[in-house]
Amino acid sequence: MTADRQKVVRLLRTARGQIDGILKMIDDNRYCIDISNQITACQAILSKVNKEVLNAHLANCVLHSSGNDAKEKLSEIAKILDQLL
Amino acid sequence: MTADRQKVVRLLRTARGQIDGILKMIDDNRYCIDISNQITACQAILSKVNKEVLNAHLANCVLHSSGNDAKEKLSEIAKILDQLL
Amino acid sequence: MTADRQKVVRLLRTARGQIDGILKMIDDNRYCIDISNQITACQAILSKVNKEVLNAHLANCVLHSSGNDAKEKLSEIAKILDQLL
Amino acid sequence: MTADRQKVVRLLRTARGQIDGILKMIDDNRYCIDISNQITACQAILSKVNKEVLNAHLANCVLHSSGNDAKEKLSEIAKILDQLL
Repeated sequence: MTADRQKVVRLLRTARGQIDGILKMIDDNRYCIDISNQITACQAILSKVNKEVLNAHLANCVLHSSGNDAKEKLSEIAKILDQLL
Repeated sequence: MTADRQKVVRLLRTARGQIDGILKMIDDNRYCIDISNQITACQAILSKVNKEVLNAHLANCVLHSSGNDAKEKLSEIAKILDQLL
Repeated sequence: MTADRQKVVRLLRTARGQIDGILKMIDDNRYCIDISNQITACQAILSKVNKEVLNAHLANCVLHSSGNDAKEKLSEIAKILDQLL
Repeated sequence: MTADRQKVVRLLRTARGQIDGILKMIDDNRYCIDISNQITACQAILSKVNKEVLNAHLANCVLHSSGNDAKEKLSEIAKILDQLL
Protein backbone atom coordinates (compact mmCIF):
# COMPACT_ATOMS: atom_id res chain seq x y z
CA MET A 1 0.00 0.00 0.00
CA THR A 2 1.32 3.43 -0.98
CA ALA A 3 -0.97 5.58 1.23
CA ASP A 4 0.23 7.38 4.38
CA ARG A 5 0.43 4.32 6.66
CA GLN A 6 0.28 6.26 9.93
CA LYS A 7 -2.84 8.20 8.91
CA VAL A 8 -4.61 5.09 7.59
CA VAL A 9 -3.82 3.03 10.71
CA ARG A 10 -4.98 5.87 12.98
CA LEU A 11 -8.30 6.16 11.11
CA LEU A 12 -8.86 2.38 11.14
CA ARG A 13 -8.24 2.27 14.90
CA THR A 14 -10.76 5.09 15.33
CA ALA A 15 -13.31 3.10 13.28
CA ARG A 16 -12.64 0.01 15.42
CA GLY A 17 -13.13 2.10 18.57
CA GLN A 18 -16.44 3.34 17.16
CA ILE A 19 -17.62 -0.24 16.59
CA ASP A 20 -16.74 -1.03 20.22
CA GLY A 21 -18.73 2.06 21.17
CA ILE A 22 -21.73 0.89 19.12
CA LEU A 23 -21.59 -2.57 20.78
CA LYS A 24 -21.66 -0.80 24.15
CA MET A 25 -24.62 1.36 23.03
CA ILE A 26 -26.53 -1.81 22.16
CA ASP A 27 -25.66 -3.27 25.56
CA ASP A 28 -26.96 -0.07 27.17
CA ASN A 29 -30.17 -0.35 25.11
CA ARG A 30 -29.67 3.06 23.53
CA TYR A 31 -32.07 4.74 21.08
CA CYS A 32 -32.12 3.26 17.53
CA ILE A 33 -31.40 6.59 15.80
CA ASP A 34 -28.38 7.29 18.04
CA ILE A 35 -27.01 3.85 17.12
CA SER A 36 -27.76 4.41 13.41
CA ASN A 37 -25.94 7.77 13.51
CA GLN A 38 -22.85 6.12 15.03
CA ILE A 39 -22.90 3.44 12.33
CA THR A 40 -23.03 6.20 9.69
CA ALA A 41 -20.12 8.01 11.42
CA CYS A 42 -18.07 4.81 11.35
CA GLN A 43 -18.82 4.33 7.64
CA ALA A 44 -17.69 7.92 7.02
CA ILE A 45 -14.31 7.14 8.65
CA LEU A 46 -13.96 4.04 6.47
CA SER A 47 -14.77 6.15 3.38
CA LYS A 48 -11.99 8.51 4.42
CA VAL A 49 -9.58 5.57 4.66
CA ASN A 50 -10.71 4.32 1.24
CA LYS A 51 -10.11 7.77 -0.29
CA GLU A 52 -6.58 7.85 1.18
CA VAL A 53 -5.81 4.36 -0.15
CA LEU A 54 -7.24 4.96 -3.64
CA ASN A 55 -5.83 8.48 -4.07
CA ALA A 56 -2.31 7.23 -3.23
CA HIS A 57 -2.85 4.21 -5.49
CA LEU A 58 -3.78 6.43 -8.46
CA ALA A 59 -0.96 8.92 -7.81
CA ASN A 60 1.66 6.18 -7.45
CA CYS A 61 0.91 2.62 -8.61
CA VAL A 62 -1.38 3.58 -11.51
CA LEU A 63 0.63 6.63 -12.64
CA HIS A 64 3.87 4.61 -12.80
CA SER A 65 2.37 1.58 -14.53
CA SER A 66 2.55 0.94 -18.26
CA GLY A 67 1.47 -1.55 -20.93
CA ASN A 68 -0.68 -4.48 -19.78
CA ASP A 69 -0.07 -3.56 -16.14
CA ALA A 70 -1.60 -0.09 -16.72
CA LYS A 71 -4.50 -1.68 -18.60
CA GLU A 72 -5.25 -4.03 -15.69
CA LYS A 73 -4.90 -1.30 -13.07
CA LEU A 74 -7.30 0.99 -14.94
CA SER A 75 -9.75 -1.86 -15.28
CA GLU A 76 -9.59 -2.31 -11.46
CA ILE A 77 -10.42 1.40 -11.09
CA ALA A 78 -13.30 1.06 -13.58
CA LYS A 79 -14.68 -1.81 -11.50
CA ILE A 80 -14.59 0.31 -8.33
CA LEU A 81 -16.28 3.24 -10.11
CA ASP A 82 -18.96 0.84 -11.41
CA GLN A 83 -19.78 -0.24 -7.85
CA LEU A 84 -19.98 3.34 -6.62
CA LEU A 85 -21.99 4.92 -9.45
CA MET B 1 -32.84 -0.52 20.22
CA THR B 2 -35.66 -2.68 18.82
CA ALA B 3 -33.63 -4.60 16.19
CA ASP B 4 -32.63 -8.27 16.55
CA ARG B 5 -29.84 -7.78 19.09
CA GLN B 6 -28.08 -11.09 18.40
CA LYS B 7 -27.95 -10.48 14.63
CA VAL B 8 -26.74 -6.89 15.03
CA VAL B 9 -24.02 -7.83 17.54
CA ARG B 10 -22.83 -10.67 15.31
CA LEU B 11 -22.57 -8.37 12.28
CA LEU B 12 -20.75 -5.66 14.27
CA ARG B 13 -18.23 -8.23 15.54
CA THR B 14 -17.69 -9.36 11.95
CA ALA B 15 -17.06 -5.74 10.91
CA ARG B 16 -14.60 -5.31 13.80
CA GLY B 17 -12.83 -8.50 12.73
CA GLN B 18 -12.59 -7.11 9.20
CA ILE B 19 -10.96 -3.91 10.47
CA ASP B 20 -8.41 -6.05 12.36
CA GLY B 21 -7.86 -7.91 9.09
CA ILE B 22 -7.31 -4.64 7.19
CA LEU B 23 -4.79 -3.46 9.83
CA LYS B 24 -2.93 -6.75 9.32
CA MET B 25 -3.04 -6.30 5.51
CA ILE B 26 -1.41 -2.88 5.93
CA ASP B 27 1.24 -4.43 8.18
CA ASP B 28 1.87 -7.06 5.49
CA ASN B 29 2.16 -4.28 2.87
CA ARG B 30 -0.64 -5.74 0.76
CA TYR B 31 -1.82 -4.34 -2.59
CA CYS B 32 -3.88 -1.08 -2.37
CA ILE B 33 -6.87 -2.47 -4.30
CA ASP B 34 -7.11 -5.56 -2.04
CA ILE B 35 -7.16 -3.24 0.99
CA SER B 36 -9.74 -0.96 -0.67
CA ASN B 37 -11.97 -3.96 -1.42
CA GLN B 38 -11.84 -5.07 2.22
CA ILE B 39 -12.76 -1.55 3.37
CA THR B 40 -15.76 -1.66 1.00
CA ALA B 41 -16.74 -5.10 2.34
CA CYS B 42 -16.63 -3.76 5.91
CA GLN B 43 -18.80 -0.78 4.92
CA ALA B 44 -21.30 -3.21 3.36
CA ILE B 45 -21.58 -5.07 6.69
CA LEU B 46 -22.17 -1.77 8.50
CA SER B 47 -24.86 -0.88 5.94
CA LYS B 48 -26.52 -4.21 6.71
CA VAL B 49 -26.46 -3.36 10.44
CA ASN B 50 -27.91 0.09 9.72
CA LYS B 51 -30.74 -1.45 7.67
CA GLU B 52 -31.57 -3.84 10.54
CA VAL B 53 -31.59 -1.00 13.07
CA LEU B 54 -33.66 1.39 10.95
CA ASN B 55 -36.13 -1.23 9.68
CA ALA B 56 -36.89 -2.32 13.24
CA HIS B 57 -37.09 1.33 14.33
CA LEU B 58 -39.69 2.11 11.63
CA ALA B 59 -41.70 -1.06 12.29
CA ASN B 60 -41.74 -0.51 16.06
CA CYS B 61 -40.80 2.88 17.52
CA VAL B 62 -42.11 5.00 14.63
CA LEU B 63 -45.24 2.91 13.98
CA HIS B 64 -46.28 3.07 17.64
CA SER B 65 -45.57 6.76 18.10
CA SER B 66 -48.19 9.50 17.89
CA GLY B 67 -48.63 13.26 18.15
CA ASN B 68 -45.47 15.31 18.63
CA ASP B 69 -43.43 12.15 19.20
CA ALA B 70 -44.42 10.83 15.76
CA LYS B 71 -43.63 14.21 14.24
CA GLU B 72 -40.16 14.24 15.75
CA LYS B 73 -39.46 10.62 14.80
CA LEU B 74 -40.49 11.23 11.18
CA SER B 75 -38.29 14.32 11.09
CA GLU B 76 -35.35 12.12 12.25
CA ILE B 77 -36.10 9.75 9.34
CA ALA B 78 -36.29 12.70 6.92
CA LYS B 79 -32.86 13.83 8.13
CA ILE B 80 -31.38 10.37 7.48
CA LEU B 81 -32.96 10.24 4.00
CA ASP B 82 -31.54 13.71 3.27
CA GLN B 83 -28.02 12.50 4.05
CA LEU B 84 -28.42 9.41 1.87
CA LEU B 85 -30.08 10.97 -1.18
CA MET C 1 -48.00 14.59 -4.23
CA THR C 2 -47.75 16.86 -1.19
CA ALA C 3 -44.42 18.57 -1.99
CA ASP C 4 -44.14 22.19 -3.20
CA ARG C 5 -45.34 21.63 -6.77
CA GLN C 6 -43.78 24.79 -8.20
CA LYS C 7 -40.34 24.05 -6.74
CA VAL C 8 -40.40 20.41 -7.87
CA VAL C 9 -41.52 21.28 -11.42
CA ARG C 10 -38.85 23.99 -11.69
CA LEU C 11 -36.12 21.57 -10.58
CA LEU C 12 -37.32 18.84 -12.95
CA ARG C 13 -37.30 21.29 -15.87
CA THR C 14 -33.75 22.28 -14.92
CA ALA C 15 -32.74 18.59 -14.93
CA ARG C 16 -34.37 18.13 -18.35
CA GLY C 17 -32.51 21.17 -19.65
CA GLN C 18 -29.25 19.65 -18.34
CA ILE C 19 -29.94 16.41 -20.23
CA ASP C 20 -30.48 18.47 -23.41
CA GLY C 21 -27.18 20.18 -22.63
CA ILE C 22 -25.41 16.82 -22.22
CA LEU C 23 -26.83 15.60 -25.55
CA LYS C 24 -25.42 18.76 -27.15
CA MET C 25 -22.03 18.18 -25.46
CA ILE C 26 -21.94 14.69 -27.00
CA ASP C 27 -22.81 16.16 -30.40
CA ASP C 28 -19.95 18.66 -29.95
CA ASN C 29 -17.61 15.79 -29.03
CA ARG C 30 -16.76 17.33 -25.67
CA TYR C 31 -14.28 15.87 -23.14
CA CYS C 32 -15.48 12.74 -21.24
CA ILE C 33 -14.89 14.24 -17.78
CA ASP C 34 -16.87 17.40 -18.61
CA ILE C 35 -19.77 15.21 -19.74
CA SER C 36 -19.45 13.01 -16.62
CA ASN C 37 -19.52 16.11 -14.39
CA GLN C 38 -22.74 17.33 -16.05
CA ILE C 39 -24.35 13.91 -15.55
CA THR C 40 -23.41 14.10 -11.86
CA ALA C 41 -24.86 17.63 -11.64
CA CYS C 42 -28.12 16.42 -13.17
CA GLN C 43 -28.28 13.53 -10.67
CA ALA C 44 -27.76 16.03 -7.84
CA ILE C 45 -30.79 18.02 -9.04
CA LEU C 46 -32.88 14.83 -9.14
CA SER C 47 -31.70 14.00 -5.59
CA LYS C 48 -32.90 17.44 -4.53
CA VAL C 49 -36.31 16.72 -6.09
CA ASN C 50 -36.45 13.34 -4.36
CA LYS C 51 -35.66 14.97 -0.98
CA GLU C 52 -38.48 17.50 -1.51
CA VAL C 53 -40.95 14.76 -2.43
CA LEU C 54 -40.00 12.40 0.42
CA ASN C 55 -39.72 15.11 3.10
CA ALA C 56 -43.22 16.37 2.27
CA HIS C 57 -44.49 12.78 2.14
CA LEU C 58 -43.14 12.06 5.64
CA ALA C 59 -44.40 15.36 7.09
CA ASN C 60 -47.87 14.95 5.59
CA CYS C 61 -49.02 11.56 4.24
CA VAL C 62 -47.03 9.41 6.72
CA LEU C 63 -47.62 11.66 9.75
CA HIS C 64 -51.38 11.70 9.19
CA SER C 65 -51.71 7.98 8.48
CA SER C 66 -52.75 5.39 11.07
CA GLY C 67 -53.39 1.66 11.47
CA ASN C 68 -52.65 -0.53 8.47
CA ASP C 69 -52.14 2.52 6.27
CA ALA C 70 -49.35 3.77 8.55
CA LYS C 71 -47.82 0.29 8.60
CA GLU C 72 -47.76 0.14 4.80
CA LYS C 73 -46.43 3.68 4.43
CA LEU C 74 -43.57 2.99 6.89
CA SER C 75 -42.77 -0.21 5.03
CA GLU C 76 -42.48 1.85 1.81
CA ILE C 77 -40.03 4.15 3.61
CA ALA C 78 -38.07 1.13 4.88
CA LYS C 79 -37.80 -0.14 1.30
CA ILE C 80 -36.41 3.21 0.11
CA LEU C 81 -33.90 3.29 2.98
CA ASP C 82 -32.84 -0.28 2.11
CA GLN C 83 -32.03 0.76 -1.46
CA LEU C 84 -30.05 3.79 -0.30
CA LEU C 85 -28.04 2.23 2.53
CA MET D 1 -16.11 11.52 -25.75
CA THR D 2 -14.87 7.99 -26.40
CA ALA D 3 -17.93 6.05 -25.14
CA ASP D 4 -20.42 4.32 -27.48
CA ARG D 5 -22.23 7.43 -28.72
CA GLN D 6 -25.36 5.63 -29.86
CA LYS D 7 -25.84 3.83 -26.53
CA VAL D 8 -25.20 6.98 -24.48
CA VAL D 9 -27.59 9.10 -26.57
CA ARG D 10 -30.29 6.42 -26.36
CA LEU D 11 -29.98 6.24 -22.56
CA LEU D 12 -30.03 10.03 -22.18
CA ARG D 13 -33.18 10.25 -24.30
CA THR D 14 -34.76 7.59 -22.09
CA ALA D 15 -33.84 9.65 -19.00
CA ARG D 16 -35.33 12.76 -20.59
CA GLY D 17 -38.51 10.83 -21.38
CA GLN D 18 -38.67 9.72 -17.75
CA ILE D 19 -38.44 13.34 -16.57
CA ASP D 20 -41.33 14.21 -18.91
CA GLY D 21 -43.20 11.26 -17.38
CA ILE D 22 -42.51 12.54 -13.85
CA LEU D 23 -43.75 16.03 -14.79
CA LYS D 24 -46.95 14.40 -16.05
CA MET D 25 -47.27 12.36 -12.82
CA ILE D 26 -47.09 15.61 -10.84
CA ASP D 27 -49.75 17.13 -13.10
CA ASP D 28 -51.92 14.06 -12.46
CA ASN D 29 -51.36 14.46 -8.70
CA ARG D 30 -49.91 10.96 -8.37
CA TYR D 31 -48.77 9.34 -5.10
CA CYS D 32 -45.47 10.70 -3.64
CA ILE D 33 -43.80 7.27 -3.46
CA ASP D 34 -44.60 6.48 -7.12
CA ILE D 35 -43.02 9.80 -8.11
CA SER D 36 -40.00 9.15 -5.86
CA ASN D 37 -39.52 5.71 -7.45
CA GLN D 38 -39.53 7.23 -10.95
CA ILE D 39 -36.95 9.83 -9.88
CA THR D 40 -34.77 6.98 -8.57
CA ALA D 41 -35.23 5.07 -11.85
CA CYS D 42 -34.14 8.14 -13.81
CA GLN D 43 -31.05 8.52 -11.60
CA ALA D 44 -30.21 4.86 -12.25
CA ILE D 45 -30.26 5.50 -16.02
CA LEU D 46 -27.96 8.51 -15.56
CA SER D 47 -25.62 6.33 -13.46
CA LYS D 48 -25.54 3.85 -16.32
CA VAL D 49 -24.59 6.67 -18.73
CA ASN D 50 -21.89 7.87 -16.34
CA LYS D 51 -20.43 4.34 -16.12
CA GLU D 52 -20.32 4.11 -19.93
CA VAL D 53 -18.61 7.50 -20.22
CA LEU D 54 -16.05 6.87 -17.44
CA ASN D 55 -15.28 3.26 -18.43
CA ALA D 56 -14.53 4.33 -22.00
CA HIS D 57 -12.52 7.29 -20.70
CA LEU D 58 -10.33 5.02 -18.54
CA ALA D 59 -9.89 2.41 -21.28
CA ASN D 60 -8.98 5.00 -23.91
CA CYS D 61 -8.05 8.56 -22.88
CA VAL D 62 -6.41 7.63 -19.56
CA LEU D 63 -4.72 4.44 -20.82
CA HIS D 64 -3.13 6.27 -23.76
CA SER D 65 -2.03 9.30 -21.78
CA SER D 66 1.50 9.79 -20.41
CA GLY D 67 3.60 12.25 -18.42
CA ASN D 68 1.84 15.33 -17.07
CA ASP D 69 -1.27 14.51 -19.08
CA ALA D 70 -1.56 11.12 -17.34
CA LYS D 71 -0.98 12.80 -13.98
CA GLU D 72 -3.77 15.29 -14.58
CA LYS D 73 -6.17 12.65 -15.91
CA LEU D 74 -5.58 10.42 -12.86
CA SER D 75 -6.12 13.40 -10.58
CA GLU D 76 -9.50 13.96 -12.32
CA ILE D 77 -10.38 10.32 -11.59
CA ALA D 78 -9.29 10.74 -7.96
CA LYS D 79 -11.60 13.75 -7.66
CA ILE D 80 -14.57 11.74 -8.99
CA LEU D 81 -13.80 8.86 -6.59
CA ASP D 82 -13.59 11.36 -3.71
CA GLN D 83 -17.10 12.62 -4.47
CA LEU D 84 -18.50 9.10 -4.68
CA LEU D 85 -16.84 7.54 -1.62
